[in-house]
Amino acid sequence: MGILTLISDYGLTDHYVAVVKGAVLAELPDVKIVDISHNVVRYNVREAGYMLRSSFNVFPKGTVHLIGVNEIESEKTPHRIVKFGGQYFIGADNGIFTELFDDVPEEVWTLTLPSNSTSISFPMLNRFVPAACFILNGGDLNEIATPVEAFNEGERLRPIVDADGIRGSIIHVDSYGNLITNVDKKLFDEVFKGKTFMIELRSKKKLVNKISEKFMEVVSGEQLALFNNEGLLMIVVSFGSPEKGEGGSAQQLLGMSVGSAFSIIFK
Amino acid sequence: MGILTLISDYGLTDHYVAVVKGAVLAELPDVKIVDISHNVVRYNVREAGYMLRSSFNVFPKGTVHLIGVNEIESEKTPHRIVKFGGQYFIGADNGIFTELFDDVPEEVWTLTLPSNSTSISFPMLNRFVPAACFILNGGDLNEIATPVEAFNEGERLRPIVDADGIRGSIIHVDSYGNLITNVDKKLFDEVFKGKTFMIELRSKKKLVNKISEKFMEVVSGEQLALFNNEGLLMIVVSFGSPEKGEGGSAQQLLGMSVGSAFSIIFK
Amino acid sequence: MGILTLISDYGLTDHYVAVVKGAVLAELPDVKIVDISHNVVRYNVREAGYMLRSSFNVFPKGTVHLIGVNEIESEKTPHRIVKFGGQYFIGADNGIFTELFDDVPEEVWTLTLPSNSTSISFPMLNRFVPAACFILNGGDLNEIATPVEAFNEGERLRPIVDADGIRGSIIHVDSYGNLITNVDKKLFDEVFKGKTFMIELRSKKKLVNKISEKFMEVVSGEQLALFNNEGLLMIVVSFGSPEKGEGGSAQQLLGMSVGSAFSIIFK
Repeated sequence: MGILTLISDYGLTDHYVAVVKGAVLAELPDVKIVDISHNVVRYNVREAGYMLRSSFNVFPKGTVHLIGVNEIESEKTPHRIVKFGGQYFIGADNGIFTELFDDVPEEVWTLTLPSNSTSISFPMLNRFVPAACFILNGGDLNEIATPVEAFNEGERLRPIVDADGIRGSIIHVDSYGNLITNVDKKLFDEVFKGKTFMIELRSKKKLVNKISEKFMEVVSGEQLALFNNEGLLMIVVSFGSPEKGEGGSAQQLLGMSVGSAFSIIFK
Repeated sequence: MGILTLISDYGLTDHYVAVVKGAVLAELPDVKIVDISHNVVRYNVREAGYMLRSSFNVFPKGTVHLIGVNEIESEKTPHRIVKFGGQYFIGADNGIFTELFDDVPEEVWTLTLPSNSTSISFPMLNRFVPAACFILNGGDLNEIATPVEAFNEGERLRPIVDADGIRGSIIHVDSYGNLITNVDKKLFDEVFKGKTFMIELRSKKKLVNKISEKFMEVVSGEQLALFNNEGLLMIVVSFGSPEKGEGGSAQQLLGMSVGSAFSIIFK
Repeated sequence: MGILTLISDYGLTDHYVAVVKGAVLAELPDVKIVDISHNVVRYNVREAGYMLRSSFNVFPKGTVHLIGVNEIESEKTPHRIVKFGGQYFIGADNGIFTELFDDVPEEVWTLTLPSNSTSISFPMLNRFVPAACFILNGGDLNEIATPVEAFNEGERLRPIVDADGIRGSIIHVDSYGNLITNVDKKLFDEVFKGKTFMIELRSKKKLVNKISEKFMEVVSGEQLALFNNEGLLMIVVSFGSPEKGEGGSAQQLLGMSVGSAFSIIFK
């Protein structure tokens, strides 16, 4: 049984995702396969990391996650298996694991299982799928991998706390145009402890001074701040959508995108 | 076991759909999950209603359908469970149920199950999924909901019959550019009883005077009228496609879109 | 049990794919359904053929593949079941089977099973699905079909070998902008037998004189040639993507598209 998830920048037009699924089901007909996303911005390890980090907690122990973004192996980016929270993550060690985990993982391995194919073009199919099936079948990792100390450290945008408050960044813009930040509720509560605050967005022109508890607090088209399902501060335009054109979503209204800085200051 | 369907405006780029699926499979590993669509035009309850109405008949009794369009709860739009034809529909009572059903449902309930989360941003995950799992597990609805008389009436475009014939509307344009109308075969047969008729499209310039029994009756690029799989009158351009540019599909050729009126008159 | 795959030009916005899946699961709850692609360019039988040909080998014997591209039946394009490699392919005989198979199939049948519906608009649902369920249930094909000699021959772009080398064509551009050709490794090795060669792309301006064994041989933005997972020669731009604009992918850099000719010549 078990669950396998897939995240990639393969898109949903070509047959690449289907081939991966067929190969899994040919070997393990009862595995459930869940697509996290195949529309990751191409080669964008950070976006893939954010999406998978925001997803994997709902899956049960034993789930295997395959990462098809920049998954070509090189000397600097060997194929790894990381065990975290009883789940397995397989991908090239290109910095993505720093995006994925907030704590030290239980185990890190370098994949030694050879590829199924002489072609260099599809390691997800020819190497990650056999490794995943091996794990889902309860195999001993020592047969397909070698333990290592740690994975490569990537860069990750972390919030900074100073006397004025918190300086954070936009780490994702979702398809509604919502701005997801790297400031979580725990940090926010620790810093502000119920004191009054002001969220300064672009050029200090746009300000929000409260965390909303209901979407309906503002009228359609107005911005509000709330903690999203993963506990991250998110700036939303009520009934916003990029398709609505200028000012139609938080991204457009505030002129902010991934990497944009903002502050939450004591008032 | 059982089947769960999902319809939403979440898109296929973010991880939101995956999180919902993971949460379901973590609790009920054998449930089959079918995506109706996640590309509903944002906040468009009518389109979601049309798509789900056109789909649910093929599913067996006991199927649970989760509706992720305008699903935020408010005083005016409480979360409901509607039982119809032995199937369950869960969503906010924002008018969508009028779009879904042509008859009175068996039961209507208001969800009382509390959310799994303090976050307000993902009721599909934190409230609909637990309710769906409860139902798929055969639980007693009284434990998670209160029966009510009826759901909120929404507006629905219905055809009008008069001495001249039938006045109908376009209720959907599919991705081929086909125009789907709200006139079904049953009404058409009742009104016209085999008499000759004329379908007047935009500005009475474009006319069709027959219902086709074969696609191949017209050459590529010409329009024809037929009853689609749900029995609704549909205007098609043979081998049409919006990607073909001007006149490439029924929508473009006839300049009609959702809400456009048309007539079928006695000749 | 068993696996069913779907390929179509239905897109992922309408509910059409969902209805097909629901109808299958209502009859056979344990069948695994895999989407090959629903974003085939509309009415493009060649593209559908390429994608399914590149996918079906990973699936086990007994898998049923349904083809929803130009699937309307006509006198010239009857609905067929083709058995190849122990797998079943169901579609209209519109030339696609020539794209699918490199060898003669085991069996070819004309479907005689009547449609489930009087509507002409959805043979995938009303005829292919019942046929697929019948096959997946182990039914005798004689009850739903009549054996025939062969399917209709379609046109297929095949490479030509002459004294200068091989003249091939681009048969697919994937969503990374990679150019997939119809020259496979077997033919290449037979013709060149280790001798030096030159791959002449558009206008002989762009040349490649080796087959790469590693992606990392070239820097980001440069082109390389390799054999893809199906053994086909593929021209790639390292870290290429159409979203990057001019020169951002092999397709853009080389100005080539499906049908473009190229040569591999002795040097």
